[in-house]
Amino acid sequence: MRKVIRFSDPVSIYARASAVGKTEYDGPLGALFDFHDGTDRFGADTWEKSEESLSLAVLNFALARAGESQDEIDLLFAGDLQNQCVASSSGCGTLGIPYCGLYGACSTSGEGLLLASLALAAAPSLSRAAVVTTSHNAAAERQFRLPLEYGGQRSPTAQWTATAGGAFLLCRSSEPFAPPSAPRIVACLPGRALDSGVTDGANMGAAMAPAAADTILRYFSLTGESPSDFDRIVTGDLGAEGSALLSELLRDNGLDLRGRHRDCGVLLFDPLKADVHAGGSGCGCSASVLSALFLPALERKELRRVLFLATGALMSPSCLLQGESIRGIAPLIVLESGKTGGDK
Amino acid sequence: MRKVIRFSDPVSIYARASAVGKTEYDGPLGALFDFHDGTDRFGADTWEKSEESLSLAVLNFALARAGESQDEIDLLFAGDLQNQCVASSSGCGTLGIPYCGLYGACSTSGEGLLLASLALAAAPSLSRAAVVTTSHNAAAERQFRLPLEYGGQRSPTAQWTATAGGAFLLCRSSEPFAPPSAPRIVACLPGRALDSGVTDGANMGAAMAPAAADTILRYFSLTGESPSDFDRIVTGDLGAEGSALLSELLRDNGLDLRGRHRDCGVLLFDPLKADVHAGGSGCGCSASVLSALFLPALERKELRRVLFLATGALMSPSCLLQGESIRGIAPLIVLESGKTGGDK
Repeated sequence: MRKVIRFSDPVSIYARASAVGKTEYDGPLGALFDFHDGTDRFGADTWEKSEESLSLAVLNFALARAGESQDEIDLLFAGDLQNQCVASSSGCGTLGIPYCGLYGACSTSGEGLLLASLALAAAPSLSRAAVVTTSHNAAAERQFRLPLEYGGQRSPTAQWTATAGGAFLLCRSSEPFAPPSAPRIVACLPGRALDSGVTDGANMGAAMAPAAADTILRYFSLTGESPSDFDRIVTGDLGAEGSALLSELLRDNGLDLRGRHRDCGVLLFDPLKADVHAGGSGCGCSASVLSALFLPALERKELRRVLFLATGALMSPSCLLQGESIRGIAPLIVLESGKTGGDK
Repeated sequence: MRKVIRFSDPVSIYARASAVGKTEYDGPLGALFDFHDGTDRFGADTWEKSEESLSLAVLNFALARAGESQDEIDLLFAGDLQNQCVASSSGCGTLGIPYCGLYGACSTSGEGLLLASLALAAAPSLSRAAVVTTSHNAAAERQFRLPLEYGGQRSPTAQWTATAGGAFLLCRSSEPFAPPSAPRIVACLPGRALDSGVTDGANMGAAMAPAAADTILRYFSLTGESPSDFDRIVTGDLGAEGSALLSELLRDNGLDLRGRHRDCGVLLFDPLKADVHAGGSGCGCSASVLSALFLPALERKELRRVLFLATGALMSPSCLLQGESIRGIAPLIVLESGKTGGDK
């Protein structure tokens, strides 16, 4: 059990899009994102609807980049952080594409890519799948902590839910329309919902690090591979706190990721410029950074093999109030650069 | 696009379990459920934790029935109605089985069976998958409407969120351990998140009926089959109101399900005895009734072919307050009785 799933016909990510809000655009990766809104509103009049609008826009952008319409996409996997994942169902879900709603907290991008790959591998009748995940800082703060207007103080371990979204279009790499240069998902390993013992909703890095360590250790143990087989080992949004804990947990198990590990939550902001404390988080954090930074590097063959782990803290405010600890989860996918293109 | 997915190696539901609370046990199907708790508490001291406990118990019951341990299950799909789907991640998710969290509102049982079937079809390295969905009346009322203690009045179209859960263990029917008599999932059709135009959170039947009609009409149009090819066409929890609307919508499109249609939300309660208004609902409603009533009838070959549509209202209280309407969704699976067994 707990097997690594390998795709005999790898899944190509043939189009992608990313979008962010103001703070994210002002960060070190700002110029890489496909579009941004300096007001964080994306044309809507509530923060919740702003996220719906972002979810729809980012999928439409990916479709436009591929020159395709929503009618060509057979199945859509989407999720977000709002209660009942409504940013997805009332956002990208409105395009009428057959829809599977996911809840994996900030790990939803990885869960979606994993399940979309399984669906394409299972059913020759499906030719294209889409994955969309988003988060919005103001909507998440209102829901999980306090509305921004209350001016609540944030603790040093707290992370900043990114106002961001990513969309991915996937097909089997054997399809004639799959661009040979498109990065490919060649394997995956689902995560486990592990109890972190953390009861502090402002320390999600600590809540997610054990799950990330569990998946990484299982992956290397099951495959016999080692970190040196990868150019990058990317985590979704452990932030500074969680990344330090991950290093420690892996070192205790004889694994050293030094030089290879990158965390999307750490990359998204410049801590000297943005007051984001331990770094970025949210379903849109890993999705937008994967889309804007790592996939293009795979397309250009600057990177050849990337281990991507989205990380999620399955945190309910009700359960924290009832004294329960937070479970973390970290699904993994193995990304490789396409067969051609990018070579100099 | 929007294709029916057929499984060349159908997926067997080789074990199942169901559990309910007091009102459900007192209903017409009471004696069929595997276990119940007359206090609705399932040993926990809050309603939210009661649902976690129910989620864990119903999966353990299915494992015990199959004589298997959690270590033999490769992948778990689960979801519920609590915010952040925490009843699942902190319920059945605690067994350490690789976990995919789903949010499909009351349609999650169907979404889970569909995605678990796709995963088994995709990956020969996976041999067993589990699907668990639950709901709890008191936890759902507190979250979506008012805590029970407030004694809120309910409108005639309101449904009663069932305190119930269902667990299913699945494998490819070609596996040597698959019981030949086990009911099989032979095909599926994902649902679409359709706007119902309904803004009344106390009329979810009306919010779900258009999505159910959409999936049924697409299925028959894509396959060329007709209702007479099925012994039963089962919807998840449209209730009395939604079932009447479904009939009307289908009749307008020239389709008549008379005599064949059953709704789990209607079957679960006796309206003369339980004050449940339009009937049952919740992620556990269709899961428990499928597990306790329809799967055994397929095992005994009293039924041979069943079209099962779980139905969900993707409703967020925040969005209703912001004037948005509710989207409905209805994933479909085609169930057939096993190859042997049950014949007289």
